[in-house]
Amino acid sequence: MKINIDRLMSDIKEYAKYGKNDQGGVTRPSFSQADHEVRALFIKELENMDLKVTIDGAANIWGRRKGNGKKQGSLVIGSHLDSVPNGGKYDGPLGVLMAKEIIKTLIENNVMLDHDIEIVSFTAEESNDFNLSTFGSRSFVGRLKMEMLKDVCDSTGARLSNELKKAGGGLDKFPMMEEMRKDKKAFIELHIEQGQRLESKNISMAVINRVVGTYRSKVRVIGQSNHSGTTMMEHRKDALTAVAEMILEVERQCKESGSSVVGTVGKLTVFPNAANIIPGQIDFIYEVRGETEEKIQHTVNVIQSVWEETASKRGVVVQQQTFLDQKPVVLDEDIVHILQSTANEMEEPFKTFSSMAIHDAAHMAAITKSAMVFVKSIDGKSHCPEEYSLPGDIEKAGNLILQGIINMDRKLS
Amino acid sequence: MKINIDRLMSDIKEYAKYGKNDQGGVTRPSFSQADHEVRALFIKELENMDLKVTIDGAANIWGRRKGNGKKQGSLVIGSHLDSVPNGGKYDGPLGVLMAKEIIKTLIENNVMLDHDIEIVSFTAEESNDFNLSTFGSRSFVGRLKMEMLKDVCDSTGARLSNELKKAGGGLDKFPMMEEMRKDKKAFIELHIEQGQRLESKNISMAVINRVVGTYRSKVRVIGQSNHSGTTMMEHRKDALTAVAEMILEVERQCKESGSSVVGTVGKLTVFPNAANIIPGQIDFIYEVRGETEEKIQHTVNVIQSVWEETASKRGVVVQQQTFLDQKPVVLDEDIVHILQSTANEMEEPFKTFSSMAIHDAAHMAAITKSAMVFVKSIDGKSHCPEEYSLPGDIEKAGNLILQGIINMDRKLS
Repeated sequence: MKINIDRLMSDIKEYAKYGKNDQGGVTRPSFSQADHEVRALFIKELENMDLKVTIDGAANIWGRRKGNGKKQGSLVIGSHLDSVPNGGKYDGPLGVLMAKEIIKTLIENNVMLDHDIEIVSFTAEESNDFNLSTFGSRSFVGRLKMEMLKDVCDSTGARLSNELKKAGGGLDKFPMMEEMRKDKKAFIELHIEQGQRLESKNISMAVINRVVGTYRSKVRVIGQSNHSGTTMMEHRKDALTAVAEMILEVERQCKESGSSVVGTVGKLTVFPNAANIIPGQIDFIYEVRGETEEKIQHTVNVIQSVWEETASKRGVVVQQQTFLDQKPVVLDEDIVHILQSTANEMEEPFKTFSSMAIHDAAHMAAITKSAMVFVKSIDGKSHCPEEYSLPGDIEKAGNLILQGIINMDRKLS
Repeated sequence: MKINIDRLMSDIKEYAKYGKNDQGGVTRPSFSQADHEVRALFIKELENMDLKVTIDGAANIWGRRKGNGKKQGSLVIGSHLDSVPNGGKYDGPLGVLMAKEIIKTLIENNVMLDHDIEIVSFTAEESNDFNLSTFGSRSFVGRLKMEMLKDVCDSTGARLSNELKKAGGGLDKFPMMEEMRKDKKAFIELHIEQGQRLESKNISMAVINRVVGTYRSKVRVIGQSNHSGTTMMEHRKDALTAVAEMILEVERQCKESGSSVVGTVGKLTVFPNAANIIPGQIDFIYEVRGETEEKIQHTVNVIQSVWEETASKRGVVVQQQTFLDQKPVVLDEDIVHILQSTANEMEEPFKTFSSMAIHDAAHMAAITKSAMVFVKSIDGKSHCPEEYSLPGDIEKAGNLILQGIINMDRKLS
């Protein structure tokens, strides 16, 4: 039994028409017109497959196929259908449309599982104008609560609660998710890698056993603004040269920590920012991601102590404010093991590593046995029109999940 | 014969009332209401001293006291009365008001020179909204020409030609400056140092024998924007870490080139500038100043070759566009020598060094024998309300110029 890769690829192409923009990308944030259209299409397709469709409080869309009743609860496959502005065809839809393809394949082959099987499309997984990424999964598992959300608006003043209602959800339906949670036996999410670890090893897919933690800090470095001509090199307190050293230290420590730690300065602003004035202040955000809390903490500590030396050597003041300290998530050992042994049975090469980005699976892991499968990205590109994965690689990952679900159904109680 | 330092200090205080702002600074760009008021005051004071006032095409204000007629032409002392936004009391006015004090002292002591003596206040010396710093002196010496200026407007659409007219100048009066130039025998400008070379050596003043050249280049570094989590350190083309190395190289080379070369990255912008995206592009402006063309060129060349290594090592592209290549100016040896020997006669310690900033004297040097005197700045501060020089230091510098003018009058033909 195999998935139909041609059908899946034409499905991906079809869904990418919703929110297609002039640059060849997809702009389909949750609650946009394109999102409403794609939701309608998706629901219709689930209904045509005789799945029982439920829309929960967070406007997550669920479609359920009954099993033979031997075992309670459902095995869930899914991801999200929203995109970043000018994103690609794969980030999100691949995981949702693959879930649909797998259930279709089971139906066509008259395979009835012991558990029910479910597809889910989570709402607003990407960064969005409500400042609530992975909104759907966080709401579903109870991490975002009704009371926290009732006054949330986007930059145009649109109220989240109203947008949820228009999409079939609503804050009044949040309590129903508490019941729904109890019924989930496993969650599998397929996603593109968005990096180059698989491509650089020429391997099609990976079983994901962890999701990295993310530490982010706002840093302000205060030196002294001064005339760029009349202030001799030895009399300067240049905030930018100090920050240059600090940025290189982030890079150095992350490189030395091994492949599972990455660090980035992505946002930086110079004051007063004039050609003939030595920068007196720099504000920047720095981020460290790592697969264990110890690795993140160690890296942050070493960077911190080198920064202190830099500051004292250069006579600048460094102020810091940690504003994100998301702990790493260990995914479910049993599910990871079932996926690994399934791949081995199929004689398909794979890697096992951490996801360096947050996905809905990281939150679903709080309520059910969860894992992920990554498929190789070409050139590591994502969140852009050039985002691409090869059909051959997607097919292997799909068949792994199809077979993995059958094995989970057998092994899980 | 000595200047009256108390009178000068109260004059400086009085002039600082024009354009005084809430932060305790002075905001008096040329052609502002405060500038018009200070011009009126200044002209009235010159007339009260029986000086012959002339306003030239660039709205520079000249006041002339006849000599005894034994020698042709005039010895000129001056600077500018305009300020940067939220500037201090000294940058500009010190040089103009000292000129007035010196002429007053000569008058009070009934000292009649062989040459005429003149005071000048140049228009729009500071960076301004017309993008024409040292406007008055550049116009006077013929570096800015009528034809280049007739369509120049500021950011509000105000026409430079109209502003000049309101201040008593006008493009139609530009030809008259060609005649005026021929008559100048020497130019001396007193200015605050705006650095810490004098303060660090605890010396009150300096005779300036050169004005540094300034090289500025717009640089664009193109790397690859990517996800800050999923892109492993070894797969990155981070434009910002590349630029961090480049910035430190500017600093390193300027430090190694000795005290007469300074280099700065003052303006820098990151794209796309988001916490979770590896920077794909950085635009910045870098500047090198040095007292000889060879030193500037050598420094720029070494930086260039190290940058090329950085770019190739990191897989980024560096694009450059030189947009300023102002040559160093050697000031007049005779005048410098007269000022030095005058200071020696007076037994006043002084340093001789280059000005690291452009001043009106750098342009006046093109048409007449020119030099400058710097007075010690406290904490090297300038272009800010905290700009300060000690009355005792100002007094020494004033008496040096007073005595220097008398010696020049004797020695120059």
